[in-house]
Amino acid sequence: MDEYTKGDVYVAALIIIGNEILAGRTQDTNTQWIASRLTDHGIVLGEVRIVPDDKEMIVKTFNDLRANFEYVFSTGGVGPTHDDITADCVADAFGVPLERSSEAFAMLEEHYGLEELTPPRAKMSMIPKGSTLIPNPVTAAPGFVIENVYVMAGVPRIMQAMLDHVLGAIKSGKPILSNTVACSLPESAIAADLAELQDNYPELVLGSYPHYRGGMLGLSLVLRGTNPEMLEKATDDLIALVEKHGDEPRALSIRSTGS
Amino acid sequence: MDEYTKGDVYVAALIIIGNEILAGRTQDTNTQWIASRLTDHGIVLGEVRIVPDDKEMIVKTFNDLRANFEYVFSTGGVGPTHDDITADCVADAFGVPLERSSEAFAMLEEHYGLEELTPPRAKMSMIPKGSTLIPNPVTAAPGFVIENVYVMAGVPRIMQAMLDHVLGAIKSGKPILSNTVACSLPESAIAADLAELQDNYPELVLGSYPHYRGGMLGLSLVLRGTNPEMLEKATDDLIALVEKHGDEPRALSIRSTGS
Repeated sequence: MDEYTKGDVYVAALIIIGNEILAGRTQDTNTQWIASRLTDHGIVLGEVRIVPDDKEMIVKTFNDLRANFEYVFSTGGVGPTHDDITADCVADAFGVPLERSSEAFAMLEEHYGLEELTPPRAKMSMIPKGSTLIPNPVTAAPGFVIENVYVMAGVPRIMQAMLDHVLGAIKSGKPILSNTVACSLPESAIAADLAELQDNYPELVLGSYPHYRGGMLGLSLVLRGTNPEMLEKATDDLIALVEKHGDEPRALSIRSTGS
Repeated sequence: MDEYTKGDVYVAALIIIGNEILAGRTQDTNTQWIASRLTDHGIVLGEVRIVPDDKEMIVKTFNDLRANFEYVFSTGGVGPTHDDITADCVADAFGVPLERSSEAFAMLEEHYGLEELTPPRAKMSMIPKGSTLIPNPVTAAPGFVIENVYVMAGVPRIMQAMLDHVLGAIKSGKPILSNTVACSLPESAIAADLAELQDNYPELVLGSYPHYRGGMLGLSLVLRGTNPEMLEKATDDLIALVEKHGDEPRALSIRSTGS
Protein backbone atom coordinates (compact mmCIF):
# COMPACT_ATOMS: atom_id res chain seq x y z
CA MET A 1 0.00 0.00 0.00
CA ASP A 2 3.00 2.24 -0.56
CA GLU A 3 1.42 3.66 -3.68
CA TYR A 4 -0.85 6.17 -1.98
CA THR A 5 0.76 9.43 -0.96
CA LYS A 6 1.96 9.05 2.60
CA GLY A 7 -0.19 10.95 5.06
CA ASP A 8 -3.18 11.12 2.71
CA VAL A 9 -4.70 7.86 3.91
CA TYR A 10 -4.67 5.63 6.97
CA VAL A 11 -4.00 1.90 6.64
CA ALA A 12 -6.14 -0.59 8.55
CA ALA A 13 -6.34 -4.34 9.11
CA LEU A 14 -9.52 -6.33 9.60
CA ILE A 15 -9.92 -9.53 11.65
CA ILE A 16 -12.97 -11.69 10.88
CA ILE A 17 -13.47 -14.09 13.79
CA GLY A 18 -15.57 -17.21 13.35
CA ASN A 19 -15.45 -20.91 12.53
CA GLU A 20 -18.60 -20.49 10.42
CA ILE A 21 -16.71 -18.53 7.75
CA LEU A 22 -13.77 -20.96 7.70
CA ALA A 23 -16.13 -23.94 7.44
CA GLY A 24 -17.79 -22.47 4.35
CA ARG A 25 -21.12 -22.36 6.19
CA THR A 26 -21.42 -18.59 6.04
CA GLN A 27 -20.46 -16.28 3.18
CA ASP A 28 -18.57 -13.37 4.71
CA THR A 29 -20.03 -10.08 3.53
CA ASN A 30 -18.58 -7.89 6.28
CA THR A 31 -15.23 -7.53 4.52
CA GLN A 32 -16.69 -5.90 1.42
CA TRP A 33 -19.00 -3.65 3.46
CA ILE A 34 -16.21 -2.48 5.74
CA ALA A 35 -13.74 -2.07 2.85
CA SER A 36 -16.16 0.15 0.95
CA ARG A 37 -17.02 2.32 3.94
CA LEU A 38 -13.35 2.72 4.92
CA THR A 39 -12.47 3.72 1.34
CA ASP A 40 -14.93 6.59 1.56
CA HIS A 41 -13.21 7.69 4.79
CA GLY A 42 -9.67 7.64 3.39
CA ILE A 43 -8.75 4.43 5.15
CA VAL A 44 -7.15 1.68 3.04
CA LEU A 45 -7.68 -1.91 4.08
CA GLY A 46 -4.16 -3.33 4.01
CA GLU A 47 -4.88 -6.90 5.17
CA VAL A 48 -7.77 -9.11 6.28
CA ARG A 49 -7.37 -12.24 8.40
CA ILE A 50 -10.15 -14.73 8.96
CA VAL A 51 -9.42 -16.77 12.09
CA PRO A 52 -11.24 -19.51 14.04
CA ASP A 53 -12.74 -19.25 17.54
CA ASP A 54 -9.37 -20.23 18.99
CA LYS A 55 -7.89 -18.15 21.79
CA GLU A 56 -4.21 -18.52 21.00
CA MET A 57 -4.76 -17.71 17.33
CA ILE A 58 -6.97 -14.69 18.05
CA VAL A 59 -4.56 -13.21 20.60
CA LYS A 60 -1.62 -13.63 18.23
CA THR A 61 -3.55 -12.09 15.34
CA PHE A 62 -4.54 -8.96 17.30
CA ASN A 63 -0.95 -8.51 18.49
CA ASP A 64 0.54 -9.02 15.01
CA LEU A 65 -1.79 -6.54 13.39
CA ARG A 66 -2.13 -3.80 15.99
CA ALA A 67 1.66 -3.34 15.88
CA ASN A 68 1.70 -3.00 12.09
CA PHE A 69 -1.45 -1.06 11.15
CA GLU A 70 -2.85 2.31 12.17
CA TYR A 71 -6.29 0.84 12.81
CA VAL A 72 -7.41 -2.72 13.53
CA PHE A 73 -11.09 -3.61 13.18
CA SER A 74 -12.59 -6.94 14.15
CA THR A 75 -15.99 -8.57 13.75
CA GLY A 76 -17.44 -11.55 15.58
CA GLY A 77 -17.22 -13.34 18.90
CA VAL A 78 -18.82 -10.70 21.13
CA GLY A 79 -22.05 -12.54 22.06
CA PRO A 80 -23.04 -14.49 25.17
CA THR A 81 -22.08 -18.07 24.22
CA HIS A 82 -19.05 -20.28 24.90
CA ASP A 83 -17.61 -19.56 21.44
CA ASP A 84 -17.72 -15.77 21.99
CA ILE A 85 -14.21 -15.15 23.27
CA THR A 86 -13.09 -11.96 21.55
CA ALA A 87 -13.17 -9.65 24.62
CA ASP A 88 -11.18 -12.22 26.62
CA CYS A 89 -8.63 -12.53 23.79
CA VAL A 90 -8.22 -8.77 23.33
CA ALA A 91 -7.69 -8.35 27.09
CA ASP A 92 -4.96 -11.00 26.88
CA ALA A 93 -3.42 -9.37 23.81
CA PHE A 94 -3.11 -6.06 25.71
CA GLY A 95 -2.12 -7.72 29.00
CA VAL A 96 -5.04 -6.17 30.89
CA PRO A 97 -7.87 -7.81 32.87
CA LEU A 98 -11.47 -8.00 31.76
CA GLU A 99 -13.64 -5.79 33.93
CA ARG A 100 -17.34 -5.08 34.19
CA SER A 101 -18.29 -1.86 32.42
CA SER A 102 -21.01 -0.22 34.48
CA GLU A 103 -22.04 1.72 31.37
CA ALA A 104 -22.41 -1.51 29.34
CA PHE A 105 -24.22 -3.18 32.25
CA ALA A 106 -26.68 -0.29 32.36
CA MET A 107 -27.29 -0.56 28.60
CA LEU A 108 -27.97 -4.30 28.90
CA GLU A 109 -30.18 -3.75 31.97
CA GLU A 110 -32.22 -1.15 30.11
CA HIS A 111 -32.59 -3.51 27.11
CA TYR A 112 -33.39 -6.75 28.94
CA GLY A 113 -34.71 -5.57 32.32
CA LEU A 114 -32.83 -6.56 35.47
CA GLU A 115 -34.73 -9.84 35.92
CA GLU A 116 -33.87 -11.03 32.43
CA LEU A 117 -30.23 -9.99 32.75
CA THR A 118 -28.97 -13.57 33.10
CA PRO A 119 -25.26 -14.36 33.66
CA PRO A 120 -24.60 -15.03 29.90
CA ARG A 121 -26.12 -11.64 29.08
CA ALA A 122 -24.25 -9.93 31.90
CA LYS A 123 -21.04 -11.46 30.47
CA MET A 124 -21.44 -9.07 27.54
CA SER A 125 -20.67 -6.14 29.87
CA MET A 126 -17.15 -7.48 30.52
CA ILE A 127 -14.61 -5.57 28.45
CA PRO A 128 -10.82 -5.13 28.61
CA LYS A 129 -9.72 -2.57 31.22
CA GLY A 130 -9.10 0.75 29.49
CA SER A 131 -11.67 0.20 26.71
CA THR A 132 -14.45 2.54 25.74
CA LEU A 133 -17.77 1.31 24.37
CA ILE A 134 -19.16 1.15 20.83
CA PRO A 135 -22.96 1.31 21.23
CA ASN A 136 -25.20 -1.40 19.75
CA PRO A 137 -28.62 -0.01 18.86
CA VAL A 138 -29.98 -3.47 17.96
CA THR A 139 -29.33 -5.85 20.86
CA ALA A 140 -27.59 -3.53 23.36
CA ALA A 141 -24.47 -5.75 23.69
CA PRO A 142 -21.74 -3.21 22.97
CA GLY A 143 -18.49 -3.40 21.06
CA PHE A 144 -15.43 -1.63 22.40
CA VAL A 145 -12.30 0.34 21.47
CA ILE A 146 -8.91 -0.08 23.08
CA GLU A 147 -6.04 1.99 21.68
CA ASN A 148 -6.15 1.43 17.89
CA VAL A 149 -8.34 -1.70 18.06
CA TYR A 150 -12.09 -1.58 17.28
CA VAL A 151 -14.08 -4.69 18.27
CA MET A 152 -17.50 -5.07 16.64
CA ALA A 153 -20.24 -7.69 16.39
CA GLY A 154 -20.33 -10.21 13.53
CA VAL A 155 -24.04 -10.00 12.65
CA PRO A 156 -23.95 -7.65 9.64
CA ARG A 157 -26.82 -5.39 10.73
CA ILE A 158 -25.23 -4.82 14.13
CA MET A 159 -21.70 -4.47 12.72
CA GLN A 160 -22.90 -1.84 10.24
CA ALA A 161 -24.46 0.29 13.00
CA MET A 162 -21.28 -0.02 15.08
CA LEU A 163 -19.08 0.92 12.11
CA ASP A 164 -21.16 4.04 11.44
CA HIS A 165 -20.59 5.08 15.04
CA VAL A 166 -16.85 4.42 14.79
CA LEU A 167 -16.42 6.25 11.47
CA GLY A 168 -18.15 9.30 12.92
CA ALA A 169 -15.49 9.47 15.61
CA ILE A 170 -12.10 8.42 14.19
CA LYS A 171 -9.55 10.32 12.12
CA SER A 172 -10.27 10.02 8.42
CA GLY A 173 -7.93 10.42 5.47
CA LYS A 174 -8.65 11.72 2.00
CA PRO A 175 -11.40 9.68 0.31
CA ILE A 176 -9.97 7.10 -2.06
CA LEU A 177 -11.47 7.73 -5.49
CA SER A 178 -11.66 5.17 -8.24
CA ASN A 179 -12.49 5.07 -11.92
CA THR A 180 -13.36 1.86 -13.73
CA VAL A 181 -12.98 1.35 -17.47
CA ALA A 182 -14.40 -1.87 -18.91
CA CYS A 183 -13.41 -3.41 -22.22
CA SER A 184 -13.37 -6.68 -24.10
CA LEU A 185 -9.62 -6.91 -24.72
CA PRO A 186 -7.69 -9.86 -23.32
CA GLU A 187 -5.48 -8.41 -20.60
CA SER A 188 -2.39 -9.97 -22.14
CA ALA A 189 -2.91 -7.77 -25.25
CA ILE A 190 -2.45 -4.58 -23.25
CA ALA A 191 -0.29 -5.77 -20.36
CA ALA A 192 2.82 -3.88 -21.47
CA ASP A 193 0.87 -0.62 -21.93
CA LEU A 194 -0.80 -1.03 -18.53
CA ALA A 195 2.58 -1.48 -16.86
CA GLU A 196 3.79 1.73 -18.52
CA LEU A 197 0.67 3.61 -17.41
CA GLN A 198 1.22 2.40 -13.83
CA ASP A 199 4.84 3.62 -14.01
CA ASN A 200 3.65 7.02 -15.23
CA TYR A 201 1.34 7.45 -12.22
CA PRO A 202 3.16 6.05 -9.19
CA GLU A 203 0.67 7.68 -6.79
CA LEU A 204 -2.25 5.81 -8.35
CA VAL A 205 -2.97 2.09 -8.24
CA LEU A 206 -3.96 0.44 -11.52
CA GLY A 207 -5.67 -2.94 -11.33
CA SER A 208 -6.59 -5.31 -14.15
CA TYR A 209 -9.47 -7.70 -13.41
CA PRO A 210 -10.63 -10.29 -15.94
CA HIS A 211 -14.02 -11.87 -15.36
CA TYR A 212 -16.57 -14.17 -16.96
CA ARG A 213 -20.10 -12.92 -17.47
CA GLY A 214 -22.53 -14.85 -19.60
CA GLY A 215 -19.73 -17.05 -20.89
CA MET A 216 -17.74 -14.04 -22.17
CA LEU A 217 -14.35 -13.00 -20.86
CA GLY A 218 -14.37 -9.30 -20.01
CA LEU A 219 -11.85 -6.97 -18.42
CA SER A 220 -12.26 -4.22 -15.84
CA LEU A 221 -9.42 -1.75 -15.48
CA VAL A 222 -9.54 0.19 -12.23
CA LEU A 223 -7.57 3.30 -11.25
CA ARG A 224 -7.53 4.34 -7.59
CA GLY A 225 -6.08 7.31 -5.76
CA THR A 226 -6.74 10.36 -3.65
CA ASN A 227 -5.88 13.07 -6.20
CA PRO A 228 -8.91 13.78 -8.42
CA GLU A 229 -6.99 15.71 -11.12
CA MET A 230 -4.36 13.00 -11.45
CA LEU A 231 -7.06 10.33 -11.53
CA GLU A 232 -8.90 12.15 -14.31
CA LYS A 233 -5.74 12.52 -16.39
CA ALA A 234 -4.79 8.86 -15.93
CA THR A 235 -8.32 7.78 -16.82
CA ASP A 236 -8.13 9.74 -20.09
CA ASP A 237 -4.82 7.98 -20.83
CA LEU A 238 -6.39 4.62 -19.99
CA ILE A 239 -9.34 5.22 -22.32
CA ALA A 240 -6.93 6.25 -25.10
CA LEU A 241 -4.91 3.09 -24.46
CA VAL A 242 -7.94 0.85 -24.88
CA GLU A 243 -9.00 2.71 -28.03
CA LYS A 244 -5.47 2.35 -29.45
CA HIS A 245 -5.95 -1.42 -29.26
CA GLY A 246 -9.15 -1.18 -31.29
CA ASP A 247 -11.71 -1.65 -28.52
CA GLU A 248 -14.44 0.68 -27.33
CA PRO A 249 -13.96 1.34 -23.63
CA ARG A 250 -17.03 1.58 -21.44
CA ALA A 251 -16.60 3.95 -18.51
CA LEU A 252 -18.47 2.09 -15.77
CA SER A 253 -17.80 4.71 -13.16
CA ILE A 254 -15.93 7.91 -13.56
CA ARG A 255 -15.08 10.32 -10.78
CA SER A 256 -17.15 8.37 -8.30
CA THR A 257 -16.13 8.21 -4.69
CA GLY A 258 -15.64 4.85 -3.11
CA SER A 259 -14.71 1.76 -5.03
CA MET B 1 -8.63 -26.32 15.44
CA ASP B 2 -7.47 -28.60 18.27
CA GLU B 3 -10.96 -29.96 18.66
CA TYR B 4 -10.82 -32.42 15.79
CA THR B 5 -9.14 -35.74 16.52
CA LYS B 6 -5.51 -35.43 15.54
CA GLY B 7 -4.72 -37.29 12.34
CA ASP B 8 -8.33 -37.34 11.16
CA VAL B 9 -8.09 -34.07 9.29
CA TYR B 10 -5.48 -31.86 7.65
CA VAL B 11 -5.32 -28.14 8.42
CA ALA B 12 -4.86 -25.63 5.61
CA ALA B 13 -4.44 -21.88 5.16
CA LEU B 14 -5.73 -19.83 2.24
CA ILE B 15 -4.20 -16.65 0.81
CA ILE B 16 -6.47 -14.43 -1.28
CA ILE B 17 -4.28 -12.05 -3.28
CA GLY B 18 -5.75 -8.90 -4.73
CA ASN B 19 -6.31 -5.19 -4.16
CA GLU B 20 -9.82 -5.53 -5.61
CA ILE B 21 -11.04 -7.49 -2.57
CA LEU B 22 -9.40 -5.12 -0.07
CA ALA B 23 -10.87 -2.09 -1.86
CA GLY B 24 -14.39 -3.50 -1.56
CA ARG B 25 -14.71 -3.57 -5.33
CA THR B 26 -15.06 -7.34 -5.54
CA GLN B 27 -16.97 -9.63 -3.19
CA ASP B 28 -14.70 -12.59 -2.48
CA THR B 29 -16.54 -15.84 -3.09
CA ASN B 30 -13.50 -18.07 -3.44
CA THR B 31 -13.11 -18.48 0.33
CA GLN B 32 -16.53 -20.05 0.80
CA TRP B 33 -16.14 -22.28 -2.25
CA ILE B 34 -12.72 -23.53 -1.21
CA ALA B 35 -13.77 -23.96 2.44
CA SER B 36 -16.75 -26.12 1.46
CA ARG B 37 -14.78 -28.30 -0.92
CA LEU B 38 -11.94 -28.76 1.59
CA THR B 39 -14.44 -29.74 4.29
CA ASP B 40 -15.68 -32.58 2.08
CA HIS B 41 -12.08 -33.74 1.72
CA GLY B 42 -11.28 -33.73 5.44
CA ILE B 43 -9.23 -30.56 5.27
CA VAL B 44 -10.04 -27.82 7.79
CA LEU B 45 -9.40 -24.23 6.79
CA GLY B 46 -7.49 -22.86 9.77
CA GLU B 47 -6.86 -19.30 8.57
CA VAL B 48 -7.49 -17.05 5.58
CA ARG B 49 -5.44 -13.96 4.77
CA ILE B 50 -6.46 -11.41 2.16
CA VAL B 51 -3.42 -9.42 1.06
CA PRO B 52 -2.75 -6.67 -1.49
CA ASP B 53 -0.67 -6.94 -4.68
CA ASP B 54 2.42 -6.03 -2.65
CA LYS B 55 5.54 -8.16 -3.00
CA GLU B 56 6.92 -7.85 0.52
CA MET B 57 3.54 -8.63 2.07
CA ILE B 58 2.86 -11.61 -0.20
CA VAL B 59 6.30 -13.16 0.38
CA LYS B 60 5.95 -12.77 4.16
CA THR B 61 2.44 -14.24 4.11
CA PHE B 62 3.48 -17.37 2.17
CA ASN B 63 6.42 -17.90 4.51
CA ASP B 64 4.37 -17.38 7.68
CA LEU B 65 1.68 -19.79 6.61
CA ARG B 66 3.62 -22.56 4.86
CA ALA B 67 5.60 -23.09 8.07
CA ASN B 68 2.46 -23.38 10.19
CA PHE B 69 -0.10 -25.27 8.07
CA GLU B 70 -0.07 -28.63 6.31
CA TYR B 71 -1.41 -27.10 3.10
CA VAL B 72 -1.37 -23.52 1.81
CA PHE B 73 -3.67 -22.56 -1.06
CA SER B 74 -3.64 -19.22 -2.83
CA THR B 75 -5.81 -17.52 -5.40
CA GLY B 76 -5.03 -14.53 -7.59
CA GLY B 77 -2.13 -12.77 -9.21
CA VAL B 78 -1.20 -15.40 -11.82
CA GLY B 79 -2.17 -13.52 -15.00
CA PRO B 80 -0.08 -11.56 -17.51
CA THR B 81 -0.28 -7.99 -16.14
CA HIS B 82 1.98 -5.84 -13.95
CA ASP B 83 -0.12 -6.57 -10.85
CA ASP B 84 0.22 -10.36 -11.30
CA ILE B 85 3.22 -11.04 -9.11
CA THR B 86 2.35 -14.25 -7.28
CA ALA B 87 4.83 -16.57 -9.06
CA ASP B 88 7.64 -14.09 -8.48
CA CYS B 89 6.68 -13.78 -4.79
CA VAL B 90 6.48 -17.55 -4.23
CA ALA B 91 9.89 -18.02 -5.87
CA ASP B 92 11.27 -15.41 -3.45
CA ALA B 93 9.54 -17.05 -0.49
CA PHE B 94 11.21 -20.37 -1.32
CA GLY B 95 14.53 -18.78 -2.29
CA VAL B 96 14.47 -20.28 -5.79
CA PRO B 97 14.58 -18.59 -9.22
CA LEU B 98 11.67 -18.34 -11.61
CA GLU B 99 12.25 -20.53 -14.64
CA ARG B 100 10.39 -21.18 -17.85
CA SER B 101 8.32 -24.35 -17.72
CA SER B 102 8.50 -25.95 -21.15
CA GLU B 103 5.31 -27.84 -20.29
CA ALA B 104 3.48 -24.58 -19.45
CA PHE B 105 4.93 -22.91 -22.55
CA ALA B 106 3.60 -25.77 -24.70
CA MET B 107 0.14 -25.43 -23.10
CA LEU B 108 0.10 -21.69 -23.81
CA GLU B 109 1.40 -22.22 -27.35
CA GLU B 110 -1.33 -24.74 -28.05
CA HIS B 111 -3.97 -22.36 -26.66
CA TYR B 112 -2.83 -19.11 -28.30
CA GLY B 113 -0.77 -20.32 -31.26
CA LEU B 114 2.91 -19.38 -31.43
CA GLU B 115 2.28 -16.07 -33.24
CA GLU B 116 -0.13 -14.87 -30.55
CA LEU B 117 2.15 -15.97 -27.72
CA THR B 118 3.21 -12.43 -26.83
CA PRO B 119 5.74 -11.71 -24.06
CA PRO B 120 2.99 -11.02 -21.44
CA ARG B 121 1.40 -14.40 -22.27
CA ALA B 122 4.75 -16.16 -22.28
CA LYS B 123 5.36 -14.68 -18.81
CA MET B 124 2.66 -17.05 -17.55
CA SER B 125 4.96 -20.00 -18.25
CA MET B 126 7.48 -18.72 -15.66
CA ILE B 127 7.12 -20.68 -12.41
CA PRO B 128 9.35 -21.19 -9.36
CA LYS B 129 12.09 -23.81 -9.92
CA GLY B 130 10.93 -27.12 -8.47
CA SER B 131 7.20 -26.49 -9.07
CA THR B 132 4.81 -28.79 -10.87
CA LEU B 133 1.86 -27.46 -12.87
CA ILE B 134 -1.85 -27.24 -12.07
CA PRO B 135 -3.62 -27.33 -15.46
CA ASN B 136 -6.02 -24.56 -16.46
CA PRO B 137 -8.69 -25.88 -18.85
CA VAL B 138 -10.15 -22.38 -19.41
CA THR B 139 -7.34 -20.04 -20.47
CA ALA B 140 -4.32 -22.40 -20.42
CA ALA B 141 -2.27 -20.25 -17.99
CA PRO B 142 -1.42 -22.86 -15.35
CA GLY B 143 -1.22 -22.71 -11.57
CA PHE B 144 1.56 -24.55 -9.80
CA VAL B 145 2.48 -26.55 -6.70
CA ILE B 146 5.70 -26.21 -4.75
CA GLU B 147 6.08 -28.32 -1.62
CA ASN B 148 2.87 -27.73 0.40
CA VAL B 149 1.87 -24.55 -1.50
CA TYR B 150 -0.86 -24.62 -4.19
CA VAL B 151 -1.07 -21.47 -6.35
CA MET B 152 -4.32 -21.02 -8.28
CA ALA B 153 -5.99 -18.35 -10.42
CA GLY B 154 -8.36 -15.80 -8.87
CA VAL B 155 -11.15 -15.93 -11.48
CA PRO B 156 -13.68 -18.25 -9.78
CA ARG B 157 -14.37 -20.47 -12.77
CA ILE B 158 -10.67 -21.11 -13.34
CA MET B 159 -9.89 -21.51 -9.63
CA GLN B 160 -12.67 -24.09 -9.28
CA ALA B 161 -11.29 -26.21 -12.13
CA MET B 162 -7.79 -25.99 -10.63
CA LEU B 163 -9.06 -26.93 -7.17
CA ASP B 164 -10.82 -30.00 -8.55
CA HIS B 165 -7.56 -31.10 -10.09
CA VAL B 166 -5.66 -30.50 -6.82
CA LEU B 167 -8.21 -32.30 -4.65
CA GLY B 168 -8.04 -35.32 -6.91
CA ALA B 169 -4.33 -35.59 -6.16
CA ILE B 170 -3.63 -34.58 -2.56
CA LYS B 171 -3.98 -36.51 0.68
CA SER B 172 -7.46 -36.15 2.15
CA GLY B 173 -8.64 -36.58 5.73
CA LYS B 174 -11.96 -37.83 7.02
CA PRO B 175 -14.85 -35.73 5.68
CA ILE B 176 -15.99 -33.16 8.23
CA LEU B 177 -19.69 -33.74 8.88
CA SER B 178 -22.04 -31.13 10.27
CA ASN B 179 -25.57 -30.99 11.61
CA THR B 180 -27.50 -27.75 11.93
CA VAL B 181 -30.41 -27.18 14.32
CA ALA B 182 -32.32 -23.93 13.94
CA CYS B 183 -34.50 -22.39 16.65
CA SER B 184 -35.98 -19.08 17.73
CA LEU B 185 -34.41 -18.91 21.19
CA PRO B 186 -32.12 -16.01 22.06
CA GLU B 187 -28.66 -17.54 22.38
CA SER B 188 -28.20 -16.01 25.83
CA ALA B 189 -31.11 -18.15 27.09
CA ILE B 190 -29.26 -21.38 26.33
CA ALA B 191 -25.64 -20.24 26.54
CA ALA B 192 -24.89 -22.19 29.73
CA ASP B 193 -26.39 -25.41 28.34
CA LEU B 194 -24.49 -25.01 25.07
CA ALA B 195 -21.22 -24.63 26.96
CA GLU B 196 -22.00 -27.84 28.87
CA LEU B 197 -22.84 -29.69 25.63
CA GLN B 198 -19.53 -28.52 24.12
CA ASP B 199 -17.71 -29.79 27.21
CA ASN B 200 -19.44 -33.18 26.86
CA TYR B 201 -18.22 -33.58 23.27
CA PRO B 202 -14.65 -32.26 23.14
CA GLU B 203 -14.06 -33.87 19.73
CA LEU B 204 -16.92 -31.93 18.16
CA VAL B 205 -17.17 -28.20 17.55
CA LEU B 206 -20.43 -26.49 18.55
CA GLY B 207 -21.14 -23.09 17.04
CA SER B 208 -23.96 -20.67 17.85
CA TYR B 209 -24.88 -18.24 15.05
CA PRO B 210 -27.59 -15.62 15.53
CA HIS B 211 -28.96 -13.97 12.40
CA TYR B 212 -31.66 -11.61 11.20
CA ARG B 213 -34.07 -12.80 8.53
CA GLY B 214 -37.14 -10.79 7.69
CA GLY B 215 -36.60 -8.64 10.76
CA MET B 216 -36.67 -11.65 13.12
CA LEU B 217 -33.70 -12.77 15.20
CA GLY B 218 -33.09 -16.50 14.66
CA LEU B 219 -30.41 -18.87 15.85
CA SER B 220 -28.53 -21.65 14.05
CA LEU B 221 -26.71 -24.18 16.21
CA VAL B 222 -24.10 -26.14 14.28
CA LEU B 223 -22.25 -29.30 15.36
CA ARG B 224 -19.19 -30.37 13.37
CA GLY B 225 -16.93 -33.39 13.54
CA THR B 226 -15.59 -36.46 11.78
CA ASN B 227 -17.29 -39.17 13.89
CA PRO B 228 -20.84 -39.80 12.60
CA GLU B 229 -22.08 -41.72 15.69
CA MET B 230 -20.85 -39.05 18.08
CA LEU B 231 -22.33 -36.34 15.89
CA GLU B 232 -25.71 -38.10 15.87
CA LYS B 233 -25.70 -38.49 19.67
CA ALA B 234 -24.72 -34.85 20.25
CA THR B 235 -27.39 -33.71 17.79
CA ASP B 236 -30.05 -35.62 19.75
CA ASP B 237 -28.80 -33.91 22.93
CA LEU B 238 -28.91 -30.53 21.18
CA ILE B 239 -32.48 -31.06 20.01
CA ALA B 240 -33.49 -32.09 23.56
CA LEU B 241 -31.77 -28.98 24.91
CA VAL B 242 -33.76 -26.68 22.63
CA GLU B 243 -37.01 -28.47 23.48
CA LYS B 244 -36.24 -28.16 27.22
CA HIS B 245 -36.27 -24.39 26.75
CA GLY B 246 -39.73 -24.57 25.20
CA ASP B 247 -38.84 -24.09 21.56
CA GLU B 248 -39.40 -26.39 18.58
CA PRO B 249 -36.06 -27.10 16.92
CA ARG B 250 -35.93 -27.32 13.15
CA ALA B 251 -33.32 -29.73 11.89
CA LEU B 252 -32.04 -27.88 8.83
CA SER B 253 -29.54 -30.53 7.93
CA ILE B 254 -28.91 -33.76 9.73
CA ARG B 255 -26.18 -36.25 8.91
CA SER B 256 -25.22 -34.29 5.83
CA THR B 257 -21.65 -34.19 4.68
CA GLY B 258 -20.00 -30.87 4.13
CA SER B 259 -20.92 -27.77 6.01
